Amino acid sequence: MANIREIAKIAGVSVTTVSRVLNNHPYVSDDKRDAVLRAMEETNYQRNINAVHLSKGVTFLIGVVIPFTNHPYFGLLVEGIATEAVKNNYKLVLIQTNYEEDREIEALKMLQHKQIDALIICSRICEWNIINEYASYGPIVLCEDSRGHNVSSTFIDHYKSFIKALEYLHSKGHKNIGYCIGRKSGANSKRRENAYKDFLEKINEKFDPNYIFYNCLKFEDGVQVVQQLMNMSNPPTALLITSDIVAAGILTYCKDQAIVIPDNLAIMGFDNQPIAKIMHITTLEIPLVKIGSKLFLQAIDPIKNSHEEIYVKLIERQTV
Amino acid sequence: MANIREIAKIAGVSVTTVSRVLNNHPYVSDDKRDAVLRAMEETNYQRNINAVHLSKGVTFLIGVVIPFTNHPYFGLLVEGIATEAVKNNYKLVLIQTNYEEDREIEALKMLQHKQIDALIICSRICEWNIINEYASYGPIVLCEDSRGHNVSSTFIDHYKSFIKALEYLHSKGHKNIGYCIGRKSGANSKRRENAYKDFLEKINEKFDPNYIFYNCLKFEDGVQVVQQLMNMSNPPTALLITSDIVAAGILTYCKDQAIVIPDNLAIMGFDNQPIAKIMHITTLEIPLVKIGSKLFLQAIDPIKNSHEEIYVKLIERQTV
Repeated sequence: MANIREIAKIAGVSVTTVSRVLNNHPYVSDDKRDAVLRAMEETNYQRNINAVHLSKGVTFLIGVVIPFTNHPYFGLLVEGIATEAVKNNYKLVLIQTNYEEDREIEALKMLQHKQIDALIICSRICEWNIINEYASYGPIVLCEDSRGHNVSSTFIDHYKSFIKALEYLHSKGHKNIGYCIGRKSGANSKRRENAYKDFLEKINEKFDPNYIFYNCLKFEDGVQVVQQLMNMSNPPTALLITSDIVAAGILTYCKDQAIVIPDNLAIMGFDNQPIAKIMHITTLEIPLVKIGSKLFLQAIDPIKNSHEEIYVKLIERQTV
Repeated sequence: MANIREIAKIAGVSVTTVSRVLNNHPYVSDDKRDAVLRAMEETNYQRNINAVHLSKGVTFLIGVVIPFTNHPYFGLLVEGIATEAVKNNYKLVLIQTNYEEDREIEALKMLQHKQIDALIICSRICEWNIINEYASYGPIVLCEDSRGHNVSSTFIDHYKSFIKALEYLHSKGHKNIGYCIGRKSGANSKRRENAYKDFLEKINEKFDPNYIFYNCLKFEDGVQVVQQLMNMSNPPTALLITSDIVAAGILTYCKDQAIVIPDNLAIMGFDNQPIAKIMHITTLEIPLVKIGSKLFLQAIDPIKNSHEEIYVKLIERQTV
């Protein structure tokens, strides 16, 4: 492939002139410009876009850190991010972490090394001191309450949302309430656990660690939850499930096992995904696509350190 | 940020020497190497990775063209691609096309401009002459039978698979068979339509365009299919549905409307996604994650023009 030195030689001009033509610099005579363009055509010159980005300092790439690529919660967030990226002529670099810290650090290094213009972290693993250190290299946007840090964020208050859901179940006569969640660690999981414990204290119920079901991420994870419930001597009468898709799996498997919903078990989902509507699942609406869209706009916004809280809404259907 | 000229000045060496140290070139004295490393430390020098990629000609980025980010079929393909990318220390640039040709061309241009090392097209829009033109710039891998073109591919023979499914439904006594599909255009859709028409001819049934249901992509799309069926005077007695998730939506909404499966309507899915197992949906297993994994390995394989056919498997459950 021809480089600009060869173009210069063929056109009989200096390398500087070629560079000026490429960058639309005004001080080039028409003759020289024509000679350069002719030489470029002759040699089928392809400009290396990385060289262009290098000189301009932008890549039009935004990094997106997600734990898994194929999960409805992150799927909806990425849908919102991607829709806005398409509109703004950006492309996304997907960094799948499997919740391994090293992979998140790799993503932060892409920001440091200017391979991406900004980084959106959908679910954080690294401690704040690490995030704050890399935030000096470029915009970082998070999907959790990040006020007080050198980043932007769009977030749900998971403590408040959890209390809201628990109070609703309690108002329907439930005291033995359990919950299903994706992972044990992580800032959002901790907030929910705190809300759960505070709520139990308030209603004078004892905390039972068996009432928390971890690793609930997919439809098929509902099967193990129901199997565990069936083996408990004193199972919860209501379940708060942090993903509608898992709630749908639980509901489907309960029907299989002749467990009547909501009489034997009340089920409350999270997100208000389309599956919740069709299966009549009572849920807490979280506008994930809208959140994704806002995360993207914060990533390309020159104003740093903006924070927006998104509110959830209770959707009453037939499973509580 | 310091550049290598400044490093050279501080270290009292030539720019060439700095460059040699950065590239681990052997012919640098220990003294000079130490001086350069000290200067880099002093100035907190950050190497611009784009410059490194520029000199090495690799980016460790693979482009992935998908029509939508949040769809279970492409979700599983991307899961396979991403898993293999993580293992091989590559990252993915996601290009969402919404089935717009311009966006696919943008992705092809990323390959031309060396922004990515290879391009995987999960669902093609552009005509072959365009794809073949860009294939001269770098590896392109497709998820459809691409033998005879300057690319690699891992594919299902959708004609054969469709015939297999239709023959199974026919063997169960169905003659009025309809099908649900994502989009009307596209190579795979055409192959399926041809298989459908050839099959009808073989069993001496007349083709009825109303028996094809388009825009069936998501769980909730099942609702409109069932509503259309309920308004038909002579509805199909069996449906072949090219996505388990749509089949699950149809099944769920049928139960709502007291349509008994399989007595009133036989349902056959595609993919064998987890939801098909839990909802006992008869389906044709397509190992999408495995296909995704193979697509990625073909993208980084120096051997071009490899083609692999993946075979489907009939999974009998309770909906036919």
